[in-house]
Amino acid sequence: MTKKAMHASQNLGQKKANEVQTKKASQKSDFTAKLLEKILKRITPSEEEKKKELAVVKGIIKRISSIKGKHIKAMLCGSLARDTHLRGEQDFDIFVLFDKELPRGEFEQLGLKIGIEALKGYEHWLEYSEHPYVKGIVDGYEVEIVPCYKVSKACLLKSSVDRSPFHARFIQKNIRPEQKKEVRLLKAFMKGIGCYGADIASEGFSGYLAELLILKYGTFLDCVKAASQWTPGLKIALNEAHLKKCKATSTLVFPDPTDPKRNVASAVSLEQFSRFVFACKKFLERPSEKFFLGAKQKIPTQISLLLKERHVIAVCLRFERDEAKDTVLGQMKRLKNLISQELEKNEFKVFASSIANTDKDVYCFLELERNSLGKLAKVIGPPVFDEKNVKAFLKKHKRVVSGPRIENDRIVVVEKRKKLYAREFVNDLILFLSKQGKEPIKSMLKKAVILEKRGLVKRCKKPEFAHELARFLIGRERFL
Amino acid sequence: MTKKAMHASQNLGQKKANEVQTKKASQKSDFTAKLLEKILKRITPSEEEKKKELAVVKGIIKRISSIKGKHIKAMLCGSLARDTHLRGEQDFDIFVLFDKELPRGEFEQLGLKIGIEALKGYEHWLEYSEHPYVKGIVDGYEVEIVPCYKVSKACLLKSSVDRSPFHARFIQKNIRPEQKKEVRLLKAFMKGIGCYGADIASEGFSGYLAELLILKYGTFLDCVKAASQWTPGLKIALNEAHLKKCKATSTLVFPDPTDPKRNVASAVSLEQFSRFVFACKKFLERPSEKFFLGAKQKIPTQISLLLKERHVIAVCLRFERDEAKDTVLGQMKRLKNLISQELEKNEFKVFASSIANTDKDVYCFLELERNSLGKLAKVIGPPVFDEKNVKAFLKKHKRVVSGPRIENDRIVVVEKRKKLYAREFVNDLILFLSKQGKEPIKSMLKKAVILEKRGLVKRCKKPEFAHELARFLIGRERFL
Repeated sequence: MTKKAMHASQNLGQKKANEVQTKKASQKSDFTAKLLEKILKRITPSEEEKKKELAVVKGIIKRISSIKGKHIKAMLCGSLARDTHLRGEQDFDIFVLFDKELPRGEFEQLGLKIGIEALKGYEHWLEYSEHPYVKGIVDGYEVEIVPCYKVSKACLLKSSVDRSPFHARFIQKNIRPEQKKEVRLLKAFMKGIGCYGADIASEGFSGYLAELLILKYGTFLDCVKAASQWTPGLKIALNEAHLKKCKATSTLVFPDPTDPKRNVASAVSLEQFSRFVFACKKFLERPSEKFFLGAKQKIPTQISLLLKERHVIAVCLRFERDEAKDTVLGQMKRLKNLISQELEKNEFKVFASSIANTDKDVYCFLELERNSLGKLAKVIGPPVFDEKNVKAFLKKHKRVVSGPRIENDRIVVVEKRKKLYAREFVNDLILFLSKQGKEPIKSMLKKAVILEKRGLVKRCKKPEFAHELARFLIGRERFL
Repeated sequence: MTKKAMHASQNLGQKKANEVQTKKASQKSDFTAKLLEKILKRITPSEEEKKKELAVVKGIIKRISSIKGKHIKAMLCGSLARDTHLRGEQDFDIFVLFDKELPRGEFEQLGLKIGIEALKGYEHWLEYSEHPYVKGIVDGYEVEIVPCYKVSKACLLKSSVDRSPFHARFIQKNIRPEQKKEVRLLKAFMKGIGCYGADIASEGFSGYLAELLILKYGTFLDCVKAASQWTPGLKIALNEAHLKKCKATSTLVFPDPTDPKRNVASAVSLEQFSRFVFACKKFLERPSEKFFLGAKQKIPTQISLLLKERHVIAVCLRFERDEAKDTVLGQMKRLKNLISQELEKNEFKVFASSIANTDKDVYCFLELERNSLGKLAKVIGPPVFDEKNVKAFLKKHKRVVSGPRIENDRIVVVEKRKKLYAREFVNDLILFLSKQGKEPIKSMLKKAVILEKRGLVKRCKKPEFAHELARFLIGRERFL
């Protein structure tokens, strides 16, 4: 072959390789487009469903308008109002606006009164976030009736819930109709990988943040492409000028366009940020259904097999009628951290910890390397030069297994441990918190049940419990 | 009672209390004096014993003088030469002096030749510290024949053993006859509490340092009083001017009066320093025999009771005929540290480790909190943002018990451990060192025996082993 011919052949080879690559890429993009279409069909409420939802909301708003009182008006906020909600996301936020001059006490009192009256005849109860509000179930939908102050600008608000109307109006005004499906895809993706929700138990992305991300990047796919390259400490905004106004420093900063001083992403933890970024990378590598709507993991029928050679403790609490679930979940998160700290402080290794909840119960799962400590412990005392403390140490540690002896400059002894089992440490902490803790979890802790080994297997007769425990034991990211 | 009478009565009370205290103090000092007398009787060699010892030494020196060669003369160094040795301390250091111009190779060769000839007819073998020398047993005494260069000043020496003649002459010249018994008491005290000996295995106080301490403080008791107030980093000297010349920084600095740049106490570890200081405090509080000559600890007949619920591993090595014991003990110390490090690195907790030796064997004892790890281990991988390493990690950790999942910003998995038992880790390390290590321990490691549980109990049929193991298990400072 001549040099020229070789060159030509190489060029031809290169060209073919390029063609193959281009073809592959286009096949993949076809596949992705079809996948997203399929997902969209599954997650978008039908026109009929929407109609029914809006009818329920209208009914309640009408009721509220007919109630005599100082409220100005009632409006639907949340994703239903923006038509960006997912099928099955059946919680409606109805905000009741009051004049901003109304004293706080009266505001709270009137707000509750309206909520209770509006839900009369339906199951309803009190919840509490920044201030109390009423939640109820109307025709199978969860309805929240939240009082808020009407202010002219978001930066003037008197209570954090006062923002919601601003968010609703902002998104309604700025989102293009074809972007609503992109928001739905992004929310479903976030939900599927487990990073949706800005509450204290989730520490993830709020619906409003998902909407802003679509406004920023245009489409679901462009958002995923951008996010796959994110690193912690990222600052992004719809308007670069907002970044100067927002002083927040956290894993992700996205200034609220209705009040740029506030960071919409302040709730996003490093873990949820990392989860989102990693899932975006993985999705681009190999797009699949499992990223959406919590791809089901196969739950083995024999949980005892999964439990074999593992050391799991479950703290089980039961919700009581009018306990605020969100509040309890936040408190459970704190409980989980306290238990983990207590165990680690006492030389246990905590492999994993997690909170799960079903309709009636909430669980804190912990997996430990071992469920008991070594029978003996080495206690390292003060330096021998510290006469006073050495005397006290020797007096305190008289019943020793070995020692006292000098190691480096310190007195040490080996002695029997008083508490050996992880369960004892957990039990004592729960006992303490059931006396010192905060309501509503405090009352629930008094009836807490701690399960281990056979206790866990027994409780697995409840399918919901078995499902949550199995998911904890498998401990795999849902998209991996 | 009038005020005056009350005052008088109080004064009388105070006076009486003072008298009681003075009486108590004088009783204590009487007790101490009697105790020291008693100890002295036990630790001082009789005139007859000394005569016999010196006769053996003279015989050997005579032999050396009669050998034809380039050596200038032979002299006795060490404590026998200063008459500060303890009864039963039967190792004699005989130094053979050579001209300082003699080339090193010839010096070593001639030194060995003389040693071997001088000990002809007696059991003898080679040892090696800075250079090789000959050791043998003559009439039950250990005799070392060490070649050295004759130099005019200690600071001009060519080899570290060349100092010995200077030390011998310095002490002989400066010690008052009545101080010899003070040196003996101090040495016996140091030996009794376990901090005598400057070799690498002991890391304690040399005989020369004990002598200097008596020159510094006058008597045993004054030395103990002073030392009870020592703190680490202490610098003391016979002549304050020496401190300026000595740049050493260690736990204890005592410049050598024959060469002030050198720190006589450089071998003293923080632990041995602390042990000495603490023992001095305790001795002043309650003087007793147990501080001297290693007060015997009661060894229970049932070692298995002591071993109950404890996790002990013993590595046993056998000395072979011409192995240098001091060298092996130094290497054993290193082995002990390597094993401890290896175990700690692999998440075992080492409660205690120690070396013991009998006539024929040397042991490394280790006590662990547990003898096995948990069956599962949590492996924390790279941050999810580090794409390349995450890929490698996921590829490497495919057979997992739980995970992969994201925790904070990292990929983690829980998987089965490959090695569980402390014994396996010790075994593998010994195997490695028996191939890569240094002689003479390298050969001994090839025949190492590792004992645990029943193996330990069985080996306790050897009383020497049982004694050492029991001492390790009791793990109490001998003076406490």
